[in-house]
Amino acid sequence: MATTTAYSLCRMFILVTLLLSCVLRQSQANFTFSLNGQNLNVHVDGIQVIAHSPGTPFLFVGSGVSSYKGHLGNFVIKDYVEERIALKNFTVIDDAEVMMRVQFHRDGFMKTTVTFTKENSSLGDVITFEDLPGDVNHIWVRLLADEKEHVYGAGEQFSYFDLRGHNFPLWIQEQGVGRNKSTEVTFEADRRDGGGGDYHTTYWAEPTFTSSRKYCCHFDTTSYSELDFRYPEFHEVQIWSNKPGKIFFGASETFTGLVGKLTAFLGRQPALPEWTYDGAILGVQGGTAAMLDYLKYAQGNSTYVTGLWIQDWVGRIKTSFGSRLFWNWEWDKKQYPDLDIEIVRLKKEGVRVFAYINPNLNREGGLFKEADKKDLLVKNSTGDTYVVDYGEFFCGIVDLTNPTAVEWYKGVITRNMIDLGFGGWMADFGEYLPTDAVFYGGQAGEALHNEWPVLWAKLNREVVEEVGMVGDILIWMRAGFSGSQKHTIVTWAGDQFVDFSLADGLASVIPAALSLGMTGFGLTHFDVGGFTSLFGIGRTEELLLRYAEFAAFTPVMRTHEGNRPAENWQFYSSSETSVKFARQSKIFNMLKDYTISVVQENTDYGIPAQRPLFMHYANDERSFSIKYEYLYGRDLLVAPVYDKGVDTWWVYLPPDNWVFLWDGKEYSGGDVQVSAPVGQIPVFYRKGSPWTQVFQEIAKIKDFASSSSRALSFKVVALISVVFVGGWVTFRRP
Amino acid sequence: MATTTAYSLCRMFILVTLLLSCVLRQSQANFTFSLNGQNLNVHVDGIQVIAHSPGTPFLFVGSGVSSYKGHLGNFVIKDYVEERIALKNFTVIDDAEVMMRVQFHRDGFMKTTVTFTKENSSLGDVITFEDLPGDVNHIWVRLLADEKEHVYGAGEQFSYFDLRGHNFPLWIQEQGVGRNKSTEVTFEADRRDGGGGDYHTTYWAEPTFTSSRKYCCHFDTTSYSELDFRYPEFHEVQIWSNKPGKIFFGASETFTGLVGKLTAFLGRQPALPEWTYDGAILGVQGGTAAMLDYLKYAQGNSTYVTGLWIQDWVGRIKTSFGSRLFWNWEWDKKQYPDLDIEIVRLKKEGVRVFAYINPNLNREGGLFKEADKKDLLVKNSTGDTYVVDYGEFFCGIVDLTNPTAVEWYKGVITRNMIDLGFGGWMADFGEYLPTDAVFYGGQAGEALHNEWPVLWAKLNREVVEEVGMVGDILIWMRAGFSGSQKHTIVTWAGDQFVDFSLADGLASVIPAALSLGMTGFGLTHFDVGGFTSLFGIGRTEELLLRYAEFAAFTPVMRTHEGNRPAENWQFYSSSETSVKFARQSKIFNMLKDYTISVVQENTDYGIPAQRPLFMHYANDERSFSIKYEYLYGRDLLVAPVYDKGVDTWWVYLPPDNWVFLWDGKEYSGGDVQVSAPVGQIPVFYRKGSPWTQVFQEIAKIKDFASSSSRALSFKVVALISVVFVGGWVTFRRP
Repeated sequence: MATTTAYSLCRMFILVTLLLSCVLRQSQANFTFSLNGQNLNVHVDGIQVIAHSPGTPFLFVGSGVSSYKGHLGNFVIKDYVEERIALKNFTVIDDAEVMMRVQFHRDGFMKTTVTFTKENSSLGDVITFEDLPGDVNHIWVRLLADEKEHVYGAGEQFSYFDLRGHNFPLWIQEQGVGRNKSTEVTFEADRRDGGGGDYHTTYWAEPTFTSSRKYCCHFDTTSYSELDFRYPEFHEVQIWSNKPGKIFFGASETFTGLVGKLTAFLGRQPALPEWTYDGAILGVQGGTAAMLDYLKYAQGNSTYVTGLWIQDWVGRIKTSFGSRLFWNWEWDKKQYPDLDIEIVRLKKEGVRVFAYINPNLNREGGLFKEADKKDLLVKNSTGDTYVVDYGEFFCGIVDLTNPTAVEWYKGVITRNMIDLGFGGWMADFGEYLPTDAVFYGGQAGEALHNEWPVLWAKLNREVVEEVGMVGDILIWMRAGFSGSQKHTIVTWAGDQFVDFSLADGLASVIPAALSLGMTGFGLTHFDVGGFTSLFGIGRTEELLLRYAEFAAFTPVMRTHEGNRPAENWQFYSSSETSVKFARQSKIFNMLKDYTISVVQENTDYGIPAQRPLFMHYANDERSFSIKYEYLYGRDLLVAPVYDKGVDTWWVYLPPDNWVFLWDGKEYSGGDVQVSAPVGQIPVFYRKGSPWTQVFQEIAKIKDFASSSSRALSFKVVALISVVFVGGWVTFRRP
Repeated sequence: MATTTAYSLCRMFILVTLLLSCVLRQSQANFTFSLNGQNLNVHVDGIQVIAHSPGTPFLFVGSGVSSYKGHLGNFVIKDYVEERIALKNFTVIDDAEVMMRVQFHRDGFMKTTVTFTKENSSLGDVITFEDLPGDVNHIWVRLLADEKEHVYGAGEQFSYFDLRGHNFPLWIQEQGVGRNKSTEVTFEADRRDGGGGDYHTTYWAEPTFTSSRKYCCHFDTTSYSELDFRYPEFHEVQIWSNKPGKIFFGASETFTGLVGKLTAFLGRQPALPEWTYDGAILGVQGGTAAMLDYLKYAQGNSTYVTGLWIQDWVGRIKTSFGSRLFWNWEWDKKQYPDLDIEIVRLKKEGVRVFAYINPNLNREGGLFKEADKKDLLVKNSTGDTYVVDYGEFFCGIVDLTNPTAVEWYKGVITRNMIDLGFGGWMADFGEYLPTDAVFYGGQAGEALHNEWPVLWAKLNREVVEEVGMVGDILIWMRAGFSGSQKHTIVTWAGDQFVDFSLADGLASVIPAALSLGMTGFGLTHFDVGGFTSLFGIGRTEELLLRYAEFAAFTPVMRTHEGNRPAENWQFYSSSETSVKFARQSKIFNMLKDYTISVVQENTDYGIPAQRPLFMHYANDERSFSIKYEYLYGRDLLVAPVYDKGVDTWWVYLPPDNWVFLWDGKEYSGGDVQVSAPVGQIPVFYRKGSPWTQVFQEIAKIKDFASSSSRALSFKVVALISVVFVGGWVTFRRP
């Protein structure tokens, strides 16, 4: 093995003789280096990831002036790049057993030391940036790309699964309404409050990706960054920080092995409570009596119900836009009399009740006052409590960097939610953190913004762990970032628009689940029916039922009435709908054992419940481009119908022996068209699956007949909705 | 005066003693230099324009990969900046009487020599960039800005007059439909064909600006560039070229002096033919009989008519979108029988006839075939004739870099248009030139694109000069760039949408005229009524008449039926409209002598006909921010009404004694509200003006009574329009 001195001499020699010398070296780590004159190539387990030459530099450093303007979770981020300097030259300055240190520079200036080292990380080798010049606050790193390479991950991506050809700004924010600048919904939403979003806007963005070249790459920065996959010969990653953190690499011969390594490193999710799979969680509101009425109605139509989710357990306030939840996380005994008793009673019947919370506190509530008095809230730059306008009501933000605040908030959750007997809750928000806030921990808002949902997830997870109820309490979050993998229990896909659009409709939750899976998070679900109604567009029965049939083949089946319940078709809008919904809840229930096994693979090996086709069919090139289908576990292929008004559907089947779930017909791969009326989602199982009998039983279920003796009439329910929820129009979350 | 050696020694000394030494020097040129350690300050006639220090460098160099994607004159331009290096250091390398040479560099690398020199230019001193490193194709130059400074020019800017706070990409293109991303018209236009435009899209962009600090600055590059006025402390100009050209500076103690210097340098426009001011030029179509019918109708209602503009003199072709002009510039004798005779007869009556031409030739026409045979058309990269799809008809582009082609096209114009007796023509287009074309002159498309309209203007101007008819023939163009000042006779503002929007409606032509004036071009006009009807929006009578009353106070009054004549209100749409229009033509006619004097000031001194208020009221700070009013010559202040449904209007008057034209009431400045019913544009004259009597006569004109014995009924005309023009929907120009 060559020594550092030898390298330096060698490099000097090369500079003179120009490319006449070539040195190859294998470090103890899985990095491999190859030096050739002014070129430096780096491989990870044989996969080349860096191809530095003066013409194609690995590293650029520079500076920029950036600004972040946030409004209701939507951000306008600007950057003026003052300098960007290609570090074309390098010198090897250290060459030890477990690391290699290389100083990149430009003709002797802008020297930056990069260390390639074997860390004690379960993922693999690591690149560290040292001694960046003081005025540098931007770096750009280029990794070698192959023209045919596919890239996945970057958090939860709703518009693209294969990220190649696009640039992904990584900043936690609202995912937007419409998310496609050429649609009217997006245009109207942008005009309304700048909330239209774009292809890349998401609650969970993350600088982690997985390549079809069977390596993965994770940047541990929390600063604003971008993953740019637009170029044929390289991927470019930019980070806006003088401390850009580390780059972790992992590689494996299989994709299951690769996500296994990635999740071993980032963290895996525990198994969900078994009762999760018993039936649907119904999102209902309006008080104790209404809640029980909805339950009776659903059960009367033979719906399998495992829970009732009452987000308005805290009561409501009035604004000029209608009623909003009172963000003061205490049981509203007036609206929910005897809730404590009913929770206990319902649990005995196998029905859990679920709550809602977020990290903000309404200024008018007792919790705000208590937290403010105890100095537990985020500050503004003048040292006062940072009060944010959420639309005619004003909130403080619990300072999650303050251990005392975290302990206090855990106490609030324990006393007010767990002790009351809730089976879990939606842990909402985490995306809105303003960058100009001042924190107990002293962090800059720019660096803390992305980390915020991780702290929020951590708090929720710890409170459950501390009461010993992991696997017993179900918490769902939407916001996330690197680190959420080990804290978050399950995500939901946020606020889809109640339509069939690709960018923000039913279709979008499929790439969202798949990309999160390739980012190391394997348990996702969504609002059955979608969430956002605006501009006179409401949810149709067809959309509700397409969502329901899809949810049956995911780990959690939960409905949401949406932001404007009265404008949306609900499971209770007609007895016909209710009966059709009930059938899907039955299918979900029948899949229980299969789903448990699928989820267990995620818990044990990090293999996501919903998997891209290529994960098990890596030799099939077409499988790398399928974004609207997924493998549910090893044996089911699911192709949700995401267009309206259709009753057939084209499905791509990777090469294998597939059986169409509903008629038993066999296929051996390729593009096939199948019958797909509403209620019959295109699903195939692998021939010879040990679960064949379960699947065959599901095929036998026909529509239930309505057996309810007292159906809730649509009119009555709509009235309830209007009274309690109507007019709740300005914000996408309560 | 110090010698070069003394400077070098001095600089070395300074580097050691750090800011202890200060040297001030006055060169023979109007540049003045001041050196202080690592700082270099440059003044132009006492106005500081450069403040270089290591922290605020004058010059950045680097490289980028840019792409230009054009479709129907709309361009998507992308740039990937690979490097941008601040040249923080400098060395004075030459210090002669008439110039100073400074080498800027970054720690000794990326050396670039900048020469500050007195050129034999009528504007003033010049900065030249020499020996840029070979791999540099982008430069960024920073000029010192004052926080309160205003900046004007950059060609014809429709959205902003004071350019401060915005960035202006300079690339000749369609101005767009809507031009404001938050309006529905823009959204629909973008969705239709990407043609919505933006605040900066314009037919005439130019790297020339004038500062309220009483200096002007001109970059003679034709490459893509940007003028970025967003920063409080500097203006930043970027140029995408390894040969970024020169920077010219001029200064004056007055704004009239400043535009005088600028136009003496860039060129001034000749006086227009005197008959221009006799009355309106009516844009009509449909053949000889129709043309004469329109004239009789207008004259029957006492309209002052100086010309008839028949754009369809070449006949029409059919496409699936309707009829389009046949781009083969020959008299269509079938549609226009006896046109030669009528032109002569009409001229005797004081009515000219006008034609239409552009630099493209329909593949189906004889002229294309002739030009193609003679090898006079632009080529594509494979060496074949570049044929462009203009919407189901295909055209070649006359190669304006080929002297033979230019001569040939001049011959076409002379024979087919001048010899036929036309009084002038619209010289349309000039914006669409594809960057991947191959030219006789060997230029790269990226550098030639912006220059193209200049070549087109030059050809038109030369043909008129060669037949000795300058001042006798009227040519109007919309596209322009640096150099158009000395070739173009008059511009029109292109294709306004037929509405009252700020960004693309009537209002937008005011800053367009003012900004062109501050770019050195002083004679502009517009389509009376606006041009573009789309999405079911047509021109109203009110809009037509607001345009007409405005046009009376400009040098040229010309109507256009618009792209969909049948959907637009026309001067002939009702006899009432016709009578009201006639009154405005009378006002225009009565202003003839005043207008001649106003235009003469432009010809003699480069003072634009339509002037910003600050040009004559430089001590009045408010005047620098007025973008929707103008001084028409020295004595009239015009404040066009650009909102619908109003009959009063707020006007800002700079400090002076003003008389309201319509009622003789006197004002001494400030914000005043005046009566402004349709037909009575808010106009003030300066008290004591030698033109007072003319203005007072105008105030006496009341509406004419209809005296026409045979009014054209709207229905008949609409029918003609549908037959000949209807369905002409896909392109904004014929």
